[in-house]
Amino acid sequence: MSPSSDYPSIPVSPRHLTGDGPGLREFVDKYSSSIAMVGVLWSGDHLFPGTVETLDLLRGKGKRVVFVTNNSTKSRADYTKKLESLGIPATPEEIFSSSYSSSIYISRILNLPPQKRKVFVIGESGIEQELQSESIPFIGGTDPSYRRDIKPEDYKAIAAGDSSLLDPEVGVVLVGLDFHFNYLKLALAYHYIQRGAVFLATNIDSTLPNSGALFPGAGTMSAPLIMMLGKDPVALGKPSQAMMDAIEGKFQFDRKRACMVGDRANTDIRFGLEGQLGGTLAVLTGVSTKEDILGGPVRPSAYLDRLSDLLGLRQEAEAGH
Amino acid sequence: MSPSSDYPSIPVSPRHLTGDGPGLREFVDKYSSSIAMVGVLWSGDHLFPGTVETLDLLRGKGKRVVFVTNNSTKSRADYTKKLESLGIPATPEEIFSSSYSSSIYISRILNLPPQKRKVFVIGESGIEQELQSESIPFIGGTDPSYRRDIKPEDYKAIAAGDSSLLDPEVGVVLVGLDFHFNYLKLALAYHYIQRGAVFLATNIDSTLPNSGALFPGAGTMSAPLIMMLGKDPVALGKPSQAMMDAIEGKFQFDRKRACMVGDRANTDIRFGLEGQLGGTLAVLTGVSTKEDILGGPVRPSAYLDRLSDLLGLRQEAEAGH
Repeated sequence: MSPSSDYPSIPVSPRHLTGDGPGLREFVDKYSSSIAMVGVLWSGDHLFPGTVETLDLLRGKGKRVVFVTNNSTKSRADYTKKLESLGIPATPEEIFSSSYSSSIYISRILNLPPQKRKVFVIGESGIEQELQSESIPFIGGTDPSYRRDIKPEDYKAIAAGDSSLLDPEVGVVLVGLDFHFNYLKLALAYHYIQRGAVFLATNIDSTLPNSGALFPGAGTMSAPLIMMLGKDPVALGKPSQAMMDAIEGKFQFDRKRACMVGDRANTDIRFGLEGQLGGTLAVLTGVSTKEDILGGPVRPSAYLDRLSDLLGLRQEAEAGH
Repeated sequence: MSPSSDYPSIPVSPRHLTGDGPGLREFVDKYSSSIAMVGVLWSGDHLFPGTVETLDLLRGKGKRVVFVTNNSTKSRADYTKKLESLGIPATPEEIFSSSYSSSIYISRILNLPPQKRKVFVIGESGIEQELQSESIPFIGGTDPSYRRDIKPEDYKAIAAGDSSLLDPEVGVVLVGLDFHFNYLKLALAYHYIQRGAVFLATNIDSTLPNSGALFPGAGTMSAPLIMMLGKDPVALGKPSQAMMDAIEGKFQFDRKRACMVGDRANTDIRFGLEGQLGGTLAVLTGVSTKEDILGGPVRPSAYLDRLSDLLGLRQEAEAGH
């Protein structure tokens, strides 16, 4: 894949803005909105130092900040609480999660037949809350009756399409990160899709950072189904442009005056580039390394060692520029 | 992929032997051994009609029959009992399972360092019994202490490589079908492999037939790891030739006088073709259809609608041929 053909606006060499006051000011002045992946703010339960001050600085300069996350396990309300608990003022309207994006897609874009409007959920309560917010009926999810072993009689019931196990109204299987994923849920999801349900994923990230290490991401819940079915789900998280369209529909921002801020080249930065945002800014506190940013096929306009390097703008201001 | 370059011995058109008495006799007379996938004998707990008589007939003609299965959940001893319960006389020595093949590979082929000889098992008791038969130490498997949710403190412990969760002696992760697969086991398997453990799979079948339908197979347990790691396991079941080598090592048969009998073109038949057996016989009672057999890239020498069509040999004999 040649970057120049797929991403015509990518510079050959992303600009390193850490410690470059004038460069920072020039870069930040170009944008009125920033779409920040929440992964640049914290890792696990650890807020990166200087995050609050950095967001204050951007908001003080009149920049609108939208927090985007592929994490489907929390709802927008949950995320607002999480941000506030870390000292970051936020409202649910500033937050865009893959579970919300999925709910919007199901309710407003998928044209489901009247008797096929139910969603079989593999995932946690964040998905359930966002489905409820769009009045979409669902089964599965955190329902404890699915947290059990498969029994010999289940095979026969599933094979026969027994409505005690396979709800005939299910028209969508939505797969997100589920810490209670099991064989029964996988078997049911497979059979629903084989019987015609739409295969959706909140996101397909293979890994989830926590405590400085990587753990199985939402994509690992779809991986068995992809192998069995020989087809991919429609993914509603970044880098799917379905998510960017939903963000734009909601916030009515000018893409050319928006900057994507993220820590993963092939999802966050790709999301911004394919969405033709004015700029993309990578931070090196997450998954992608400097080598990925400088040498990989997907390159941002600029990069910082850490998000709080934006505080260099303060010194720039104090120095009278 | 061109069949003619990969499988030089494949006939363009597999011969249909159902109802063709002389063809059957000519075909069967060529071989002294048959390696039969157990999938051709039964589905779920349902023995295909005529199976016992067909095996009697083959044995009566002096053919050695070896039963091969990718199912890792049962040991050879378990399989012997299962065959006997269905009325098929058998001994554990006639049975070759992917869990046995994996154990042979670990004990006799992998050259593990002295302090890295333990196996972390994702799978059921069949794997554990076969590891024990080769005196290989293991953890995981059916141990109930792994059948629990991941806890917040587990992330930190795993990230830190804490020996309470990550046994430093583990040098192999062996992944088979596990009806108690969960997030914790997946996270541990990933971290063991990231720390240098060898990634093995008993087999990578995506599906498992039961009650006339398909359910998640052992491959769906490896799929999340393949996605996270970006690499495939060494698979010890068919169609891996590691399994054929082990079968040959054990039974000392002449490959040119052996026939592979199976119901999946791209695993069973491929296994026989790549192993350069004298013949391959597909039966249509399983996954592959007549269209797969006649039109697919992997074609057997001959095919039957069902295994018991071999009983046509009896009529052939009675007719005085």
